[in-house]
Amino acid sequence: MSGPHPSTAKIRYAVRAALADLSPESLVLVACSGGGDSMALAEAVTHEARHGSWSAGAVVVDHGLQPDSAHVAQQAAQRCRDLGLDPVVVERAVTSDSGSGLEAAAREARYAALSRSADHLGAAVVLLGHTLDDQAEQVLLGLVRGSGARSLAGMAATRGRYRRPLLGVTRAECRESCFAEGVQWWDDPMNEDPSFTRVRARRAVADLEVDLGPGIVAALGRSADQLRDDADVLDALADDAVSALGTGPWDVVDLEALARGVRTRVWRRLLVAAGAPAGQVSTRHTESCDALITHWRGQGPVHAPGSVRVLRRDGYVVAQADSPARGDAHG
Amino acid sequence: MSGPHPSTAKIRYAVRAALADLSPESLVLVACSGGGDSMALAEAVTHEARHGSWSAGAVVVDHGLQPDSAHVAQQAAQRCRDLGLDPVVVERAVTSDSGSGLEAAAREARYAALSRSADHLGAAVVLLGHTLDDQAEQVLLGLVRGSGARSLAGMAATRGRYRRPLLGVTRAECRESCFAEGVQWWDDPMNEDPSFTRVRARRAVADLEVDLGPGIVAALGRSADQLRDDADVLDALADDAVSALGTGPWDVVDLEALARGVRTRVWRRLLVAAGAPAGQVSTRHTESCDALITHWRGQGPVHAPGSVRVLRRDGYVVAQADSPARGDAHG
Repeated sequence: MSGPHPSTAKIRYAVRAALADLSPESLVLVACSGGGDSMALAEAVTHEARHGSWSAGAVVVDHGLQPDSAHVAQQAAQRCRDLGLDPVVVERAVTSDSGSGLEAAAREARYAALSRSADHLGAAVVLLGHTLDDQAEQVLLGLVRGSGARSLAGMAATRGRYRRPLLGVTRAECRESCFAEGVQWWDDPMNEDPSFTRVRARRAVADLEVDLGPGIVAALGRSADQLRDDADVLDALADDAVSALGTGPWDVVDLEALARGVRTRVWRRLLVAAGAPAGQVSTRHTESCDALITHWRGQGPVHAPGSVRVLRRDGYVVAQADSPARGDAHG
Repeated sequence: MSGPHPSTAKIRYAVRAALADLSPESLVLVACSGGGDSMALAEAVTHEARHGSWSAGAVVVDHGLQPDSAHVAQQAAQRCRDLGLDPVVVERAVTSDSGSGLEAAAREARYAALSRSADHLGAAVVLLGHTLDDQAEQVLLGLVRGSGARSLAGMAATRGRYRRPLLGVTRAECRESCFAEGVQWWDDPMNEDPSFTRVRARRAVADLEVDLGPGIVAALGRSADQLRDDADVLDALADDAVSALGTGPWDVVDLEALARGVRTRVWRRLLVAAGAPAGQVSTRHTESCDALITHWRGQGPVHAPGSVRVLRRDGYVVAQADSPARGDAHG
């Protein structure tokens, strides 16, 4: 008898490697959308659980964003049960767009739902079905933002209790495995809707393959891995530098002594510590701060989000949050 | 009277900033292909030289790769003279494909020709006409290689006597400036030939703009700037680490203590120091070396280019070049 299909073997091996450190009796949950990637993951996890000392279930998140979403979720849950996963739960995600866009809001709601299920069921690990293709798209989206190594570094294989065993597996391999193992999946029509950034990123990767040759997906994944390592080092250096600098005012000489790659990260931290909302600090702000050191010509304060001002005076730099006007009758 | 066209003003300002540190009486050479980018650069340099204490000439490199290349070179040289540049020389580049491909060979020959002219004329600075678009294409090509921050970091604004004042200026702005200033340029038909990697990269950037929206060129340029700063920091850390490690054998504990982002760079340096040709050391080799630390299961030596072997034994790692067989009658 021959072994499993090579794609199935690859996915099972990736799952085994990702769970090698698991304690006996642990519960592993597969975050399953019912799509080809997470169904291939569910199949591999079921197979590995049979040979492991741990047990495996699944969570299907119902976003309620499409009329038939409840049906799709129930179908995915049933397919997980048919594979042999237990427990399998459907968790409702409540998406409220708080201004950062529907995709970001849906993502936030999805992780909240997954965490609720994991807490409730006492799961040690939640497995996510992101593939190498997802990683490549993530890197491209980071490039479009142009906001440095961390945003180019894609998704990590491990983050808290979340793990992504399929970051080295392509979407095509997942479908091949489903097909070979007789596992049915559901193709989300939203994956074809170009009003979603993610869908446009998918097209962009496909176009890059046409323009620059195959291998671009793997190369983007490799870049992500290396840039994540780089960002870890640089973030640690920036943390150390911020500790050494203290709360300020900061001597220009000390700031000048930092390498630029570290100092731009230090500015971000100093701005956030002074009260600037992290999500609103952009390269433009950190660059303006840096010009106080590298292009000093007596310029005025840098205005950062959250009414934070950074100014240089008498060889020192200070960051201060503008206090609201005092004596305001409405205050 | 109104000022110059905004694109002309932008280019002239960029040239002024790039040459602010120039000593009086210096000679600046524009490396001119006759294309829109370098002709716009030549115009701006001529203008700035009139107000500066330095003088400006041009070098046109004739690659001899196309039948009419001598004519194209003479035409570009004449246009530079018409602008007022002096001296203007045509330097012949001899391209010999040494196995790394025609584009790489032509680039090498071009820089050799530029250096010869600069030496001969005693130029302090050679200005290159690479634009923001070239930078974006360079970053994409680095992504395709997937070989880390340095290859994603694009071109530096300054390298030795070479300077690139136009890295913040688009190709379109250069053409606008030429048009506004009545400067003629030559469109190289090779810029349309998709057998060249550079041309495919240009298409890839254009496709990305369609897929992901405008601003991708600027974002790629911004990413390059930041990644160059990052790579500078990480390369310096790796240099320090290599000095501290010495010639080996290296204690596994010392290697383990390095952050991965530093250690992968250390492996590259140790391999090259042991005799591996720098151009042949790939991520695959450094990853295999790293597995001796991170995934040690008693594996055999890592075989690197140049017959370099890296092996771990008794808690130490050593890199050695296999010596040629002794007692060889032909040796």
